[in-house]
Amino acid sequence: MSTAPGRLILVPNTLDFGIDGEQSPLDAVLPDAVLTQAARISHWAAENAKTTRAFLKRVNASHPLALPLQEQHIVELPRPPKGRPADGDDERAWMTLLQPALQGRDLGLISEAGMPAVADPGARLVAAAHAAGIPVLPLVGPSSLLMALAASGLNGQSFAFVGYLPVEAAARSSRLRELETRSAREQQTQLIIETPYRNASLMQALLSTLKPQTRLSISCGLSLPSGWTHTATVAQWNQRGRALPDKVPAVFALLA
Amino acid sequence: MSTAPGRLILVPNTLDFGIDGEQSPLDAVLPDAVLTQAARISHWAAENAKTTRAFLKRVNASHPLALPLQEQHIVELPRPPKGRPADGDDERAWMTLLQPALQGRDLGLISEAGMPAVADPGARLVAAAHAAGIPVLPLVGPSSLLMALAASGLNGQSFAFVGYLPVEAAARSSRLRELETRSAREQQTQLIIETPYRNASLMQALLSTLKPQTRLSISCGLSLPSGWTHTATVAQWNQRGRALPDKVPAVFALLA
Repeated sequence: MSTAPGRLILVPNTLDFGIDGEQSPLDAVLPDAVLTQAARISHWAAENAKTTRAFLKRVNASHPLALPLQEQHIVELPRPPKGRPADGDDERAWMTLLQPALQGRDLGLISEAGMPAVADPGARLVAAAHAAGIPVLPLVGPSSLLMALAASGLNGQSFAFVGYLPVEAAARSSRLRELETRSAREQQTQLIIETPYRNASLMQALLSTLKPQTRLSISCGLSLPSGWTHTATVAQWNQRGRALPDKVPAVFALLA
Repeated sequence: MSTAPGRLILVPNTLDFGIDGEQSPLDAVLPDAVLTQAARISHWAAENAKTTRAFLKRVNASHPLALPLQEQHIVELPRPPKGRPADGDDERAWMTLLQPALQGRDLGLISEAGMPAVADPGARLVAAAHAAGIPVLPLVGPSSLLMALAASGLNGQSFAFVGYLPVEAAARSSRLRELETRSAREQQTQLIIETPYRNASLMQALLSTLKPQTRLSISCGLSLPSGWTHTATVAQWNQRGRALPDKVPAVFALLA
């Protein structure tokens, strides 16, 4: 007897990953039915098992888990081997993760922060699910990229996210100029993220590389009670300045 | 005595705008604290007053409005005059909308569907708020673009949304080829939306214009109980086919 496959359910996480001392209330960032759904899932494919357990503990406080936390099945996504192209073993690792769904159980995919499969390694699992005929169900939750875009006041009818910038200073400046040129030519808002401890250094690079009239929006600590968004020209940012915390995630958006 | 300004609060709407006979349950698409916040607001800048009233009526059913529906202050965003560049009058119209916030009251910005100021005319009001020193607060809610991207399994580490395609067939094909070329060169997922009654015609254009190996993901009725996402190569779509409803919003994502 064949079993109908379970679903791959994309469960958004909060945006307060790695922040000490301040959290977003769960009921401000996840719909009630999403919390109920998350509490029912007992098999997970996770970017990070530890943060998934921390998430489930928070869910459990308002929406009791169907399976106790210590019995949850949490498997981490394979980490891409650096400098080695994907091979057959790799493919098998992704398919192994899908086993619970192939056996008829719903499988949750969860990231360290925000929407899974956006700006994280989860998209390959979603692709494998489609290839295997497993239905994919995205749930509603916070996306720092979209919230930053909406709050920026920059063009929301054409925008792009191109992943992390190069770390090396000259390569980073050159990439920023490229993005600024495209933004000017196409009136396309360019979204940029960085690991929080590099926020200040990215900020400095933006202010010294971009043209004075380019508009720069910074969103810091989105969804946190202390969160803020500020949009001004690069010239204005250079005049006023504004310190960026080094442990709070920020999203940068520019429109030239 | 000067008054501290109110905030411009970006209130996401549901994704079931214009769909007959099926709705997303409110508690599946909006966090409880967002519904509480929406129920407290009495001044709105809206893409459409009628759909805003319909939204508030739904909110009121679970989260009683602080001000009765018929007393809510709802002002529509100015419609951009076709073919005429923005002038001073225009600017004044946007500033007038911000009056409640300048007088110390929270002002809600709401779209017909999804996140305000993304793929809609609201960004200019957000920009005006920043210019006037009014704090901007984005709330969490559904974004069909982000949900479709996550559910596609296509590259979520580089993606772009470029607004509506040209309606005229030759111009549309030419634009699609341009997006496909960029997608191939940069491995950038391209997101496309269309008004629902043109879904079938866009689908036909995609299948006849794109290369057979380009991957195409279609998400239809996101957040609806009947919603689905399917990802396959253009060659596979051409073999299997799949009818698109003409009254349900769809998001198309391609990766060449």
